[in-house]
Amino acid sequence: MVKQQIKGEEKFGVQNDLQKMEAGETMRIGDKNELEFVNVTHSIIDAINPVLHTPEGAVVYGLDKRMDHTPVIGDPIDMERFREIGREGNGVLCYIEDCTNAGKKGRTPSEAVARRHLRDVMESIQDYDGGIVATTFSSHIARVKSLVEFADDIGRQPVLLGRSMEKYSGTAERLNFVDFPEDLGMYGHRKSVDRTFKRIMNEGKENFLPIVTGHQGEPRAMLTRMGRGETPYELDEGDKVLFSARVIPEPTNEGQRYQSEKLLGMQGARIYDDIHVSGHLREEGHYEMLEALQPQNVIPAHQSLKGFAPYVDLAENLGYKVGRDLHVTRNGNMIQLTE
Amino acid sequence: MVKQQIKGEEKFGVQNDLQKMEAGETMRIGDKNELEFVNVTHSIIDAINPVLHTPEGAVVYGLDKRMDHTPVIGDPIDMERFREIGREGNGVLCYIEDCTNAGKKGRTPSEAVARRHLRDVMESIQDYDGGIVATTFSSHIARVKSLVEFADDIGRQPVLLGRSMEKYSGTAERLNFVDFPEDLGMYGHRKSVDRTFKRIMNEGKENFLPIVTGHQGEPRAMLTRMGRGETPYELDEGDKVLFSARVIPEPTNEGQRYQSEKLLGMQGARIYDDIHVSGHLREEGHYEMLEALQPQNVIPAHQSLKGFAPYVDLAENLGYKVGRDLHVTRNGNMIQLTE
Amino acid sequence: MVKQQIKGEEKFGVQNDLQKMEAGETMRIGDKNELEFVNVTHSIIDAINPVLHTPEGAVVYGLDKRMDHTPVIGDPIDMERFREIGREGNGVLCYIEDCTNAGKKGRTPSEAVARRHLRDVMESIQDYDGGIVATTFSSHIARVKSLVEFADDIGRQPVLLGRSMEKYSGTAERLNFVDFPEDLGMYGHRKSVDRTFKRIMNEGKENFLPIVTGHQGEPRAMLTRMGRGETPYELDEGDKVLFSARVIPEPTNEGQRYQSEKLLGMQGARIYDDIHVSGHLREEGHYEMLEALQPQNVIPAHQSLKGFAPYVDLAENLGYKVGRDLHVTRNGNMIQLTE
Amino acid sequence: MVKQQIKGEEKFGVQNDLQKMEAGETMRIGDKNELEFVNVTHSIIDAINPVLHTPEGAVVYGLDKRMDHTPVIGDPIDMERFREIGREGNGVLCYIEDCTNAGKKGRTPSEAVARRHLRDVMESIQDYDGGIVATTFSSHIARVKSLVEFADDIGRQPVLLGRSMEKYSGTAERLNFVDFPEDLGMYGHRKSVDRTFKRIMNEGKENFLPIVTGHQGEPRAMLTRMGRGETPYELDEGDKVLFSARVIPEPTNEGQRYQSEKLLGMQGARIYDDIHVSGHLREEGHYEMLEALQPQNVIPAHQSLKGFAPYVDLAENLGYKVGRDLHVTRNGNMIQLTE
Repeated sequence: MVKQQIKGEEKFGVQNDLQKMEAGETMRIGDKNELEFVNVTHSIIDAINPVLHTPEGAVVYGLDKRMDHTPVIGDPIDMERFREIGREGNGVLCYIEDCTNAGKKGRTPSEAVARRHLRDVMESIQDYDGGIVATTFSSHIARVKSLVEFADDIGRQPVLLGRSMEKYSGTAERLNFVDFPEDLGMYGHRKSVDRTFKRIMNEGKENFLPIVTGHQGEPRAMLTRMGRGETPYELDEGDKVLFSARVIPEPTNEGQRYQSEKLLGMQGARIYDDIHVSGHLREEGHYEMLEALQPQNVIPAHQSLKGFAPYVDLAENLGYKVGRDLHVTRNGNMIQLTE
Repeated sequence: MVKQQIKGEEKFGVQNDLQKMEAGETMRIGDKNELEFVNVTHSIIDAINPVLHTPEGAVVYGLDKRMDHTPVIGDPIDMERFREIGREGNGVLCYIEDCTNAGKKGRTPSEAVARRHLRDVMESIQDYDGGIVATTFSSHIARVKSLVEFADDIGRQPVLLGRSMEKYSGTAERLNFVDFPEDLGMYGHRKSVDRTFKRIMNEGKENFLPIVTGHQGEPRAMLTRMGRGETPYELDEGDKVLFSARVIPEPTNEGQRYQSEKLLGMQGARIYDDIHVSGHLREEGHYEMLEALQPQNVIPAHQSLKGFAPYVDLAENLGYKVGRDLHVTRNGNMIQLTE
Repeated sequence: MVKQQIKGEEKFGVQNDLQKMEAGETMRIGDKNELEFVNVTHSIIDAINPVLHTPEGAVVYGLDKRMDHTPVIGDPIDMERFREIGREGNGVLCYIEDCTNAGKKGRTPSEAVARRHLRDVMESIQDYDGGIVATTFSSHIARVKSLVEFADDIGRQPVLLGRSMEKYSGTAERLNFVDFPEDLGMYGHRKSVDRTFKRIMNEGKENFLPIVTGHQGEPRAMLTRMGRGETPYELDEGDKVLFSARVIPEPTNEGQRYQSEKLLGMQGARIYDDIHVSGHLREEGHYEMLEALQPQNVIPAHQSLKGFAPYVDLAENLGYKVGRDLHVTRNGNMIQLTE
Repeated sequence: MVKQQIKGEEKFGVQNDLQKMEAGETMRIGDKNELEFVNVTHSIIDAINPVLHTPEGAVVYGLDKRMDHTPVIGDPIDMERFREIGREGNGVLCYIEDCTNAGKKGRTPSEAVARRHLRDVMESIQDYDGGIVATTFSSHIARVKSLVEFADDIGRQPVLLGRSMEKYSGTAERLNFVDFPEDLGMYGHRKSVDRTFKRIMNEGKENFLPIVTGHQGEPRAMLTRMGRGETPYELDEGDKVLFSARVIPEPTNEGQRYQSEKLLGMQGARIYDDIHVSGHLREEGHYEMLEALQPQNVIPAHQSLKGFAPYVDLAENLGYKVGRDLHVTRNGNMIQLTE
């Protein structure tokens, strides 16, 4: 009998040491439990899914992943290990799953597909002798890496601009997750960004590829400021702006992005958008995970109830039942899975 | 503690007598329970919500209703009685609610609003001297009544055509729910329909308002046959077709309705659509029902899980919690609400 | 042979006297031409379509109207006069038409339908003992009038708040287009608005209906300020906000309106939206105008080319041809219609 | 002065010999004119754009192309030749352009991107030991070729099924446009198709990749028949169906495709859709063509007026003007471009 308990008031302060773990490593927690990190693939580098091995079976926390067999950085998702976890010991007591794309048919494409798409776009404009600007998620190091490489392929010097651009890429490089060119410029502070823009304008826009923040049209991001003419970088008729990102489908974002594109367009920019693939599993990835893990219980997560709905339908196709072994719940609630 | 039990295999054959009950009446069931019918308003006539009074409180089955204070046929929804049920005895143990329109803001308009809209359309074409044809849900007697009355107002003889048109309106008249004109023709069989169409063509299309089946573009319904030119009724350039219904939003329907409109359009017909209001509560009706009944437990129904989602959000705004007193479940499951 | 000439550079300064004309009146312009105002119906009061009578025929400028036979303020559209103009003298040389709703099926409903809808909403909340706030287009005097009347019907004192609310309604009253209650408050300046809000909070929100600016979620409008908690009016859980307007379908508006509703919702407000009808003709109104005027030439206007497209299709259904008597052009271009 | 003449009634019977021409070749037409074929890229093989060289300049007929620099079959689009045509002699008198995707931002991806996407999907299911079925446009030989090659890569024997599948691929092979494996089966007649399905069922579905007709859910196509269970091929829970095509956005198609997917789903099939790129230029391709050709006149084509609209906006951005050198017209009309 499954019991659900509602979010209580108690809070616990935890004072443990911070421990560093790599994908594939494990760590004991108490006498009976062990924590394991399994390598997965996502829009960020070095993504893992934590698995808590308990005497009753494994609890797999599956949020934030795509099933990528040809990622641009790092190893493919470790499906072999997930299949082993499904078979060994008491199997999987519970799987908590990311429902972001649960209602979308088919398979989330590999980052290699986005990379091929991006290459197609950049090669098509390699003869353009004016400004080209690109934007993407600052945390998406694989995409930034592709942009940097293709910039070089079409004879332009890439440069990363904007606070979070500098922060994420700088960190990734220091931790050796990515091997950028020695001389790749990364500037976060307003002053150094503006100085760089001035240099670009002096040396000729046709020699550079600024990779900037602002893919969602955020009012204070770099690309939006460029659209408003607030930076020394001047857009000319025919200049290209590449959005290697998709608009997050929410009216506030959509309004902001629309405004940003409109401002850029009024300055003559041509927009290339949707050069992107999602970082979250679609339907077929969900089926594959459930088939690999064979979990006794499933908990949809990372979405509103509406977002859970298609995942619940999918799990029911495989024989799970709401209220028995498929648990629709909320953050903060407690579910007792064993006697 | 709430327990949910999954749909089992047993089936029971019930051999009880059929009993007739009016809105407002009650009936004993066993020693301790009583069934009551409360008058509600919907797209059909004589709609009720059954309430089972038990020693533990009332169970209110709230499906298929709109909150209409000015219906065209019958009495307004009996909110006074719902409020009493919420207050009396042990109150309401459980409320089962219709989530069809749960995600829609505001209030479902009264049938009086659809009637005013329909009158506006029909008066605007009262000088047209060619064919006018109308379609609506055959079971929507109030709408059929409005069509019949406005036909008379603009100097046209209404006539009901199509199997279900004849069946529903004929039954409503026999049971005295509606008082149609003595000479209102209703024809269901192909032969008598075609004979009527011939008579209309002979006596002049400008003197009639055929009210026919086919509001969803169903391939075998009367209006679709008219669009394909399979009936003796000939459409001319400029003839009017009134859809007093909305397309049920599902691709099959949408495809069929689109085809039907296209065929009608190729024969010259002009389409007036969406002259309609829904028969299901929207958000504000849901809030009002919960405030009237103050139920201890709430069960969303009449939808997929995706359809439940906005209702669950709404109930949570009022303090209910999934897994405690707000039960997300499936048809066929059993929920134990008391010890 | 029709010739089109492209927008030139010359500009002329005109120093004529301003003349006042009523619907139905005419005025000579030079020896041969006469200007007539024909009464039409729109979302504003006192709307007319100007007709220039020339020796070659009439030029009818048809922008900004709906075909309303039961407007809430003023006379119905004067279709009789349009039909006469179509028949008399050399007929209509040219008709310039408003394509805003050209792609929408059927007929734009009368303001009487919006009024019936609004009444349904307001009567449904007449027992609510908290705050109710309404917003609509400030220039839509007929709607403001309905709001004011229904406020009275449900026992609340209406008050108009916001600069343009005061300006439009004040002007309409001074010019005797509308007869508001003697004591109807209208306040535009920030200080007097805030003083009014304080008075409302002191005397009890349940006694008032503030009618305010902000139906599109404009960041500086009154309702948006209320959503952000910047006014003395405090929203409570369950308070009602009525949008008697539709979102103008453009991402910037949609984003702003979404944000405004979200802010209002976070303060507990319940939203009633789309209590509205458009002020522009749909397909069937366009057919009716062309049939009444029988123009020799037709010029679609008041839209982008994309907006013209469905109107051009419609006119082609009636035998007009692009490049012959159906002229797709741009503001500023010149078209020579006669030798 | 441009004059447009409306479609007349005369029809001419032409009795000329059929001539074969390759991309890059030219042919004299009369004393003064020459016809040239320029190599382009599209969803079919061996696509060209015809160019008529006249004493007044070249007339370029630009329909049905994408700008592909890395097509899977054949040569890249010959932009070099288009640029030459723009510069030589009297330049380009007139360019007639395909507006299918004119309203879409950015660039239509190369077939190489669709191929990479398809490879990603097929590799992801290479370990599946049940049925996999694929469908695409029969005329899309490059896509069929990719499907055939990847089938081999994942250890399955491809086989082409359906009348048009056999016809197009058979012709392409006979004309040496594609080099399929010696033993690739292609079957069009019902009997031979059913015999093949029986053989597949006998030898094991896991060894084959049927490539079939039915990507739009056409009621009589092979995949739709499979969904209805009318062929000897039995779908099992978990079998994969790949739509390497997009639904043509029209309600009839959408309804049919929805039904087809639903039937396939009821038999347990898992759907992978949208593994595709369009064959028509988007905005940036249009800009590039206009910049290469520098035409004196532009005529949007291959769409309704609504479809022309975004292209007209785009051409106006480059300085063209409707009614001067940008001609909005209809099939069958005549436009006189020179004195």
